[in-house]
Amino acid sequence: MEDTVLYEVRGPLALVTLNRPDRLNALTTPMIAQALAALRRGEADPAVFAIAVTGAGRGFCAGIDAEQLMVATSEGIAEVSDEDKVPGLFVELPSISKPIIAAVNGPAAGAGFILAMMCDLRFMAEEAVMTTVFSKRGLIAEHQSSWVLPRLVGLSRALDLLWSSRRIDGAEAYRIGLADRLVPAAGLLDAIQTYVEEMARTVAPRAVAIAKAQVYRHLATDLPTAARETYALVRESLSHPDAREGAVSFVERRAPNFVAWTGADG
Amino acid sequence: MEDTVLYEVRGPLALVTLNRPDRLNALTTPMIAQALAALRRGEADPAVFAIAVTGAGRGFCAGIDAEQLMVATSEGIAEVSDEDKVPGLFVELPSISKPIIAAVNGPAAGAGFILAMMCDLRFMAEEAVMTTVFSKRGLIAEHQSSWVLPRLVGLSRALDLLWSSRRIDGAEAYRIGLADRLVPAAGLLDAIQTYVEEMARTVAPRAVAIAKAQVYRHLATDLPTAARETYALVRESLSHPDAREGAVSFVERRAPNFVAWTGADG
Amino acid sequence: MEDTVLYEVRGPLALVTLNRPDRLNALTTPMIAQALAALRRGEADPAVFAIAVTGAGRGFCAGIDAEQLMVATSEGIAEVSDEDKVPGLFVELPSISKPIIAAVNGPAAGAGFILAMMCDLRFMAEEAVMTTVFSKRGLIAEHQSSWVLPRLVGLSRALDLLWSSRRIDGAEAYRIGLADRLVPAAGLLDAIQTYVEEMARTVAPRAVAIAKAQVYRHLATDLPTAARETYALVRESLSHPDAREGAVSFVERRAPNFVAWTGADG
Repeated sequence: MEDTVLYEVRGPLALVTLNRPDRLNALTTPMIAQALAALRRGEADPAVFAIAVTGAGRGFCAGIDAEQLMVATSEGIAEVSDEDKVPGLFVELPSISKPIIAAVNGPAAGAGFILAMMCDLRFMAEEAVMTTVFSKRGLIAEHQSSWVLPRLVGLSRALDLLWSSRRIDGAEAYRIGLADRLVPAAGLLDAIQTYVEEMARTVAPRAVAIAKAQVYRHLATDLPTAARETYALVRESLSHPDAREGAVSFVERRAPNFVAWTGADG
Repeated sequence: MEDTVLYEVRGPLALVTLNRPDRLNALTTPMIAQALAALRRGEADPAVFAIAVTGAGRGFCAGIDAEQLMVATSEGIAEVSDEDKVPGLFVELPSISKPIIAAVNGPAAGAGFILAMMCDLRFMAEEAVMTTVFSKRGLIAEHQSSWVLPRLVGLSRALDLLWSSRRIDGAEAYRIGLADRLVPAAGLLDAIQTYVEEMARTVAPRAVAIAKAQVYRHLATDLPTAARETYALVRESLSHPDAREGAVSFVERRAPNFVAWTGADG
Repeated sequence: MEDTVLYEVRGPLALVTLNRPDRLNALTTPMIAQALAALRRGEADPAVFAIAVTGAGRGFCAGIDAEQLMVATSEGIAEVSDEDKVPGLFVELPSISKPIIAAVNGPAAGAGFILAMMCDLRFMAEEAVMTTVFSKRGLIAEHQSSWVLPRLVGLSRALDLLWSSRRIDGAEAYRIGLADRLVPAAGLLDAIQTYVEEMARTVAPRAVAIAKAQVYRHLATDLPTAARETYALVRESLSHPDAREGAVSFVERRAPNFVAWTGADG
């Protein structure tokens, strides 16, 4: 792995850092691949409960590197040859079965906005700003934004952000539900570390993984379907050691000792 | 009906009270059945406009009784034999065709969280706290929570609550849309009484029942389908006496006298 | 066009004004047709980037004219003969491919609530109030409200507004996501003018049109479907001059010069 994406494990938290600070961490194709590989590495590590994504220096991610963008728009997308491949940027993140938390330390724009949006939660520095940018570049609501954004902030707020590409600060992002926590920049990673350590001590990694899949999946089903699928998952889960351990540790008033999770039942 | 669930009618409001205050109203299987029976009783009573659910003493509902939980997790769910039955807890509530309002007077946890969540509205005491709890017991997003919760508070807030099982207070619940009203505990039932009496005086019970079904149903359809179904319902509704009474009472500047509702057109 | 609906172009903004101020702009059937014609006129004008809808005098829109309502409820809806026509009021607005912004200058009630709700964004005067009204007239959740409203404000807030028909003021509408901006009445149209002029200077009209269609459409699909459809739209868009102009103007640090939009690619 090159040093444009850093990977570090801090207790139960894997920290993935975009590391082109002189370019506000603008993404190149190799960086995107490396970031995904780092997320998969965190998923596969039994010591890792959750993964945070942040940017080195004063920015989170300024989007796709401008030179790459010029190539894409002048050549079209001829290089994308696989018709069946779902091409959205960071579309894999909801299928990575551990919590992924964006540490939005500074500007998140364009593909950087998408990266933050596709993380499950966003802890945002008060000083940071986010902007969709696409409409300023003549581009439509790219990369799942038309689907995910209304489900985070509501229909009209999503239109406003996608249309105007205006910058919103941490306070507004928090108010509308785009940011889940608002933290001074200096305390951003500490806030995530504390949140993840608390979860790692108290909740079951497998339950968290299944719940992630349920929530994304059931955004597109009706209630009877969701109830039926949940029922099947509950049947499986009640025979898993974690269910017994959860009940016993509660009755015995001790910390639970849940099974580690690496992406699938062992 | 045993006294672990109390039922009382106060004007247009039926009040269903979970009554095991020494156990923070933790639910046993008979209590769940009794609570549902009480809700159905409220639905069938033409004098009742809406139903409130609350807890006796200082708690709302602490969840499934711990002893029952131990049995379920040690025995699996072999006792649930009916494959076709949708098994979610309180999944019937959206099909009860009167407003159901949770009076969250104190802690709501686990199945108590689900009960509050499956009510249509939540009036919450400032002093109360809510927590999903499931992940702490090794359990997944049970009982419709993966479907309902994101539609109340948004995608990422739902994940946060389901994953961390952290306690949120009334102020936070109100901020994110989980609580519809925030009231000092001492005034909680009065606030609901006032709200329901105002509705009973001014709006049509049948219209409220149909609107409840529309909203839950149309969360899982596209807009053309919703418009088509609504059109058929409007056709029916315009020939119902309530539509005429609504227009005439408005023109005559008097209180309307709508037809009572007991679960279906008579 | 009669003077019950006024149409005026102010730079990139077309302003559609309901003009029966002595009746709080209550809608007659001809007015509804005129308002829709005015919106279509704005869509077809290449100089118009977005359209605002407001009311003359102190009201936004008091709903369907009371005399018309009496006729409809006494005669049923026999006059609506076309079975296949989706009959919802203002259901066409999401298919008009330019931003439509409600300038809610005063009371919006009943069909006036629907009109504001079906606009893409709502800029609301602090002094204004909104109310659904239907339940007070014996009517169900009419005209797409059961579908749109929960996607703007969440499930339980939608039920509360549809059931109680209570009046909410600007502050509450803004808090729950029904209003996108809260502005003193005197500055309402200026705020919209500024917002639209900024967009017209900086973002691509075609991208905005496509994004509008994506967002409404993808509220009713799953994520893979949305990603697939978006991919096809991105393919088209990358070969449109706007994509090139967006990238080049960015690199050259100059204002973009995007292609005008009149409802479809030329």
